Amino acid sequence: MRRPILTLTTDFGTKDHFVGVMKGVILGICPEAHIIDISHEVQPFEISEGAYLIAQAYPHFPPKTIHVLVIDPGVGSARRPILVEAGGHYFIGPDNGAFAMVYSKTPHKIRAITNEKYFLEPVSRTFHGRDVFSPCAAYLAKGARPSTFGKLIEDYLKPVFTEPQRIGKRVWQGTVLHIDRFGNLITNFHIDHFSDVRVRPFELAIGTRILRRLGLTYAEVDPGEVFAIVGSSGYVEVAVNQASAARALGCGVGAPCELTLA
Amino acid sequence: MRRPILTLTTDFGTKDHFVGVMKGVILGICPEAHIIDISHEVQPFEISEGAYLIAQAYPHFPPKTIHVLVIDPGVGSARRPILVEAGGHYFIGPDNGAFAMVYSKTPHKIRAITNEKYFLEPVSRTFHGRDVFSPCAAYLAKGARPSTFGKLIEDYLKPVFTEPQRIGKRVWQGTVLHIDRFGNLITNFHIDHFSDVRVRPFELAIGTRILRRLGLTYAEVDPGEVFAIVGSSGYVEVAVNQASAARALGCGVGAPCELTLA
Amino acid sequence: MRRPILTLTTDFGTKDHFVGVMKGVILGICPEAHIIDISHEVQPFEISEGAYLIAQAYPHFPPKTIHVLVIDPGVGSARRPILVEAGGHYFIGPDNGAFAMVYSKTPHKIRAITNEKYFLEPVSRTFHGRDVFSPCAAYLAKGARPSTFGKLIEDYLKPVFTEPQRIGKRVWQGTVLHIDRFGNLITNFHIDHFSDVRVRPFELAIGTRILRRLGLTYAEVDPGEVFAIVGSSGYVEVAVNQASAARALGCGVGAPCELTLA
Repeated sequence: MRRPILTLTTDFGTKDHFVGVMKGVILGICPEAHIIDISHEVQPFEISEGAYLIAQAYPHFPPKTIHVLVIDPGVGSARRPILVEAGGHYFIGPDNGAFAMVYSKTPHKIRAITNEKYFLEPVSRTFHGRDVFSPCAAYLAKGARPSTFGKLIEDYLKPVFTEPQRIGKRVWQGTVLHIDRFGNLITNFHIDHFSDVRVRPFELAIGTRILRRLGLTYAEVDPGEVFAIVGSSGYVEVAVNQASAARALGCGVGAPCELTLA
Repeated sequence: MRRPILTLTTDFGTKDHFVGVMKGVILGICPEAHIIDISHEVQPFEISEGAYLIAQAYPHFPPKTIHVLVIDPGVGSARRPILVEAGGHYFIGPDNGAFAMVYSKTPHKIRAITNEKYFLEPVSRTFHGRDVFSPCAAYLAKGARPSTFGKLIEDYLKPVFTEPQRIGKRVWQGTVLHIDRFGNLITNFHIDHFSDVRVRPFELAIGTRILRRLGLTYAEVDPGEVFAIVGSSGYVEVAVNQASAARALGCGVGAPCELTLA
Repeated sequence: MRRPILTLTTDFGTKDHFVGVMKGVILGICPEAHIIDISHEVQPFEISEGAYLIAQAYPHFPPKTIHVLVIDPGVGSARRPILVEAGGHYFIGPDNGAFAMVYSKTPHKIRAITNEKYFLEPVSRTFHGRDVFSPCAAYLAKGARPSTFGKLIEDYLKPVFTEPQRIGKRVWQGTVLHIDRFGNLITNFHIDHFSDVRVRPFELAIGTRILRRLGLTYAEVDPGEVFAIVGSSGYVEVAVNQASAARALGCGVGAPCELTLA
């Protein structure tokens, strides 16, 4: 029988004991769990960053993987824990919109987790990653059926993460979703909706630059040249060969950009 | 049969090969080991920070977990390797007081590890994490009995980590033990000894502030308000909703604070 | 049957989803894989740093471990993926010289990986860690024979990582290979070739200092004293007890140093 896989994504960092404790709780309940870290370096409280990371990561895991995502500025308040079934995977975390990029693209069922027998006792007011989300994920990994966690709900949070806005006949206003380790700026122009950038001239205005080149690889352009590229995520990125586009352009998350298609 | 669990806590960071090498050594001896990282971001040589982290983390792991803790400024000198049995868990590391917060709260047996057949050969002077502590932990995980590692000792290091000092009838002088990822200041006032903060008025003086409010959750107070809260560790923390108390107050580890109970 | 061990070394950092995705891909193909991180904090594009880390780490893993090393500024360009067999281990990554410190010391066979049935489909231009190297490693872990990956080649990259140059009868010019977490400067003088430093007087000139003392442990010298020591890697390091030699000397990777043997 296959070992169940759980992934963890949090804004807990790795200097404290928080992530290790979550793993200890999981292994106490489900010793055969295979636990994989996606990231614990989400900017504190930045739900949209966690939403981006888990949406990118989950399709590359085997079906039935359980993804725990805890970015939880509202810990201890009334926000509910939820269990999402979508795309053949499970997702567990607070109901704060962090799974919206997952369920916007695939049929899904969402339950409010109310069955307290899956919680540690007593539940603290400040660390539900340990007391609620980890044990729920572990019981699910051990074979508990989703229906035993709580009832299906419809009134879960449905945030609208920034989508490009059409502001002219052939012009869209977009934004920078994320900056990766290499300083590449990931915009919210997805190739599925803007495939024309591959076949006809375009202008991407960002900061003080106007980019007209779509590179195929990072290595093909001269060092120092700023260019656009369709990244591994499917989003149009702004990149510089072997350097940081974020630094070159002085742009951060949320910076505006404008795409004009010929 | 259950896979043995080992945890690692060090000040080795994650940019070098040190932690990976420890895991390689462990798996070479005990291939079925399940190795979990607690933290490798302990401030270099800060034994008291490691002591805090392991004391927080270990109770959340299954019984018989083996915890390796290597913060070892004295590597290669005369300080002894020890094996601690306490609270149903095992602890391995240099005898430098790093387990004191564990054994101050529970019955314990401590052995000086002298059986060199559990060491790698030759033992280097500079990397006992690799040559001594990892292989010892792996042999223990594989089933070696604690008594085969060495004799029980009484003269292990017993540092007194800062406990609050009573300086008046209802006044205690305390200190900041740790600053977590979110900038929360963890004081050494533990709720087990200062449960009165939950039921009667108090004043907690820290930096230039006097706090009188005990929050139940981070989310219940206004952004920017500095308040006290009993954290997931059981210690009184100083926190700011969605911001860093350490930055707001300009306080670091070791900063004094004073608690007055009405 | 033993679980296959795979190690990962990249410059991908841990804030993005990249490393988690590689693990998801591996587990989808080879669920029993035991995946160990060596480091993901290699300085972006610094192949020589990755070369140093993997050469240090691999001998401490069990035979037949599969080491994946992806520092890949040329991703998407013509550089080939390779599979190296050396020292009883396997190594997979781009052909950019990153395994040179491994195969310079041991007999080896190197194949250009051309069998696309081991790749994800479609292969992106920007993330071969996910699409090429992870799945190849996973199929190898699952039992695919090396010969099925592609033909043996001789024209792989053979960079000469800086070796000390003799510049006088008893004088060698060396350089700083790496700075570790503690600020120790690892030079390229290896004790196997410069064992004389252990038995006779020497002078090691670095920055504005001339060092004449070879310490046996970090702890034996006074705090603040700069000294030489043979590190756990076998290279001569420049160290300061409980402080950063890199900061004390203002030296970085590539800094020159000069060794004179009496």
